Amino acid sequence: MLNMGGPSTVPETHDFLKNLFMDRDLIPLPFQSLLAPLIAKRRTPKIEAQYTAIGGGSPILRYTEFQGKGMATLLDELHPETAPHKSYVAFRYANPLTDETAKKMKEDGVKRAVAFTQYPQYSCSTTGSSLNELFRKGKAGDAGDIEWSVIDRWGTHPGFVEAVAQNIEAALQKFPETSRSDTVLLFSAHSLPIRYGSLETIQPLSSRVQSQVGPSAWMGIQTSEALKGLARLGKKQVVLVPIAFTSDHIETLYELDLEYAEEARELGIDVQRAASLNESPVFIRALADIATKHLRDYSAGTIGPTSRQMDLRCPGCTNAVCGQQKSCYVNPLDFLAHLFMSCFILDPGKRSLKGRGAKFDPPGGRRKSGCIGENATIRPQLKISHSNRIREIQT
Amino acid sequence: MLNMGGPSTVPETHDFLKNLFMDRDLIPLPFQSLLAPLIAKRRTPKIEAQYTAIGGGSPILRYTEFQGKGMATLLDELHPETAPHKSYVAFRYANPLTDETAKKMKEDGVKRAVAFTQYPQYSCSTTGSSLNELFRKGKAGDAGDIEWSVIDRWGTHPGFVEAVAQNIEAALQKFPETSRSDTVLLFSAHSLPIRYGSLETIQPLSSRVQSQVGPSAWMGIQTSEALKGLARLGKKQVVLVPIAFTSDHIETLYELDLEYAEEARELGIDVQRAASLNESPVFIRALADIATKHLRDYSAGTIGPTSRQMDLRCPGCTNAVCGQQKSCYVNPLDFLAHLFMSCFILDPGKRSLKGRGAKFDPPGGRRKSGCIGENATIRPQLKISHSNRIREIQT
Repeated sequence: MLNMGGPSTVPETHDFLKNLFMDRDLIPLPFQSLLAPLIAKRRTPKIEAQYTAIGGGSPILRYTEFQGKGMATLLDELHPETAPHKSYVAFRYANPLTDETAKKMKEDGVKRAVAFTQYPQYSCSTTGSSLNELFRKGKAGDAGDIEWSVIDRWGTHPGFVEAVAQNIEAALQKFPETSRSDTVLLFSAHSLPIRYGSLETIQPLSSRVQSQVGPSAWMGIQTSEALKGLARLGKKQVVLVPIAFTSDHIETLYELDLEYAEEARELGIDVQRAASLNESPVFIRALADIATKHLRDYSAGTIGPTSRQMDLRCPGCTNAVCGQQKSCYVNPLDFLAHLFMSCFILDPGKRSLKGRGAKFDPPGGRRKSGCIGENATIRPQLKISHSNRIREIQT
Repeated sequence: MLNMGGPSTVPETHDFLKNLFMDRDLIPLPFQSLLAPLIAKRRTPKIEAQYTAIGGGSPILRYTEFQGKGMATLLDELHPETAPHKSYVAFRYANPLTDETAKKMKEDGVKRAVAFTQYPQYSCSTTGSSLNELFRKGKAGDAGDIEWSVIDRWGTHPGFVEAVAQNIEAALQKFPETSRSDTVLLFSAHSLPIRYGSLETIQPLSSRVQSQVGPSAWMGIQTSEALKGLARLGKKQVVLVPIAFTSDHIETLYELDLEYAEEARELGIDVQRAASLNESPVFIRALADIATKHLRDYSAGTIGPTSRQMDLRCPGCTNAVCGQQKSCYVNPLDFLAHLFMSCFILDPGKRSLKGRGAKFDPPGGRRKSGCIGENATIRPQLKISHSNRIREIQT
């Protein structure tokens, strides 16, 4: 389960910020290796105070592990062909980082893994950055033989949408019935630099952004500005809906709950914040459904190791790592280096795929590849029907 | 049927451009009433040459009338309660303009009408601008007594998506079967100024923009730049998919077919352009389905005269007309001026709503309003259940 992560304890804040500002996929800075540590150091006290205010750290690891365990248990029932399943977590900026998770996966003898992004919508600055990091670490390290595939976007999955909707309904219930229909639903997501273009979203009543950093232009108007605007337009009740993160994090617990909700109350707006997905059983079931469909389609040979969409680079992309990363995941034969993927659903009990190769064999058979290890076999690039391809775009 | 329109003949080009540059909802310019005519005059020869090159004018009126007639015929079957139905066209910048259509509707004795935007996705610069114009003209003019409602967005309707998908599949068939799966689908839409935020889209493989004008920052990278980028990344086959317009227009027939496709061929890319919706029976059925559902739900009192989403102004909005327009459509009691709506499905045979008031009566009854005429009755603001509201966001 790939995500950006957050410091579980206050002392981890500095390293988290340093990793974040060092990420050229997210924030390209001039003289990055010099500037990033300086910016991280300068911002650390302020961010440490925020993590202290929300109880001494980010709960994202705890919730991700909870979701992963629940998903793995459901997967054993939903897709017994690949049972037993186990979840790992790999964060881009906080512990457990990719290296650490990789070592653990090697110790466990993992042979088959799914890189499952925990960002519902795809962006080169989020899921793309995590996959680039996995590719770099994979080239450098030695994680053993793993047959891998990637789940790179699932923001329109009905189970995910239902889980978010349930939390919005619960927040709406906190307003008096007489005025409930006059409540504005304000969706708040972490912004992206404008160069990453549009974020795929479920249709919001009004969607706004938070947490803009660095020198680039960022998308959208700030959530706090939106609240001021709504107050000016005479709105009295708002449900703030955090979207695009799968659990509570500093933006929900500090920015939304402590800063914006307070500001809104001063403006005469009564704010209720929709809960994050956290321990939502509907959401955990959605994760299991997404993984089951992926494993089933991959086994049947109707999908490749990644979605067709991930195969395509942005037309303006000049990031060489993106090209190498995509080639490697989509067509591992291009690469001889051993790769690993962290953060997954996998089968630690089976040490080799040889014994069950037939189960995964696509119609065209498999070829050996040094890219994912001597003993592993991988599928050749698939021919997916154009109808399937277009349906994929629609869903 | 509301749309921006285009000059049906070359001599209408100047007035079309003048109307476009005069629209403050689309392009706010300093000294607009002085600058807009100058810009329009300067650009006229170039754009006239483009309309000459595509056969002497825009086909948008012909196609919209074709679609409207087909829809009305289907509506007579699908929703006989409001038959007979008739379609009108009102363009924002070209003939037939709102004034002309209004006069025609008054002559026909229209009593019930639906303002049906032909922009699938909502933006304040497109559908919003058309509704603002209708509001302004309605306040000033005298179009008789019309009970109206609004269909303001339908970009996720499965019939619309299916119609677009069919045209993409047909374009893909033109490539050899052996290389078909390596074809990039490049979606191209008319851009929007960045201040309008995100456009709701169906998930594209890659979406790019065209036709940026004026001094504001516009969204996205240009289609021509995207084609150059794809060529650099080694792509050899592209299907260009015009999205967000319901028929051919100058951007498809001139920019895509004559300019970009030519450029792409010089770059070594084989381009096929997906057909526009034009006379697609699947699309016309989708329009009829959207209108049927709207009429049925409105009659049953489960929706108001507009969608809930249209009721909400953008939090940063400072355009006074937007506020008045929304109040008037959502709650006509606020306004005493006679309003009319152009471009519609309606019932010209019935001169008064009195005789069939019960059919439309919502649970709470109706009140008289001068806003839509002495003899007309309108529904009070509805209380829509919160579940409905959330479902509306999801769909």
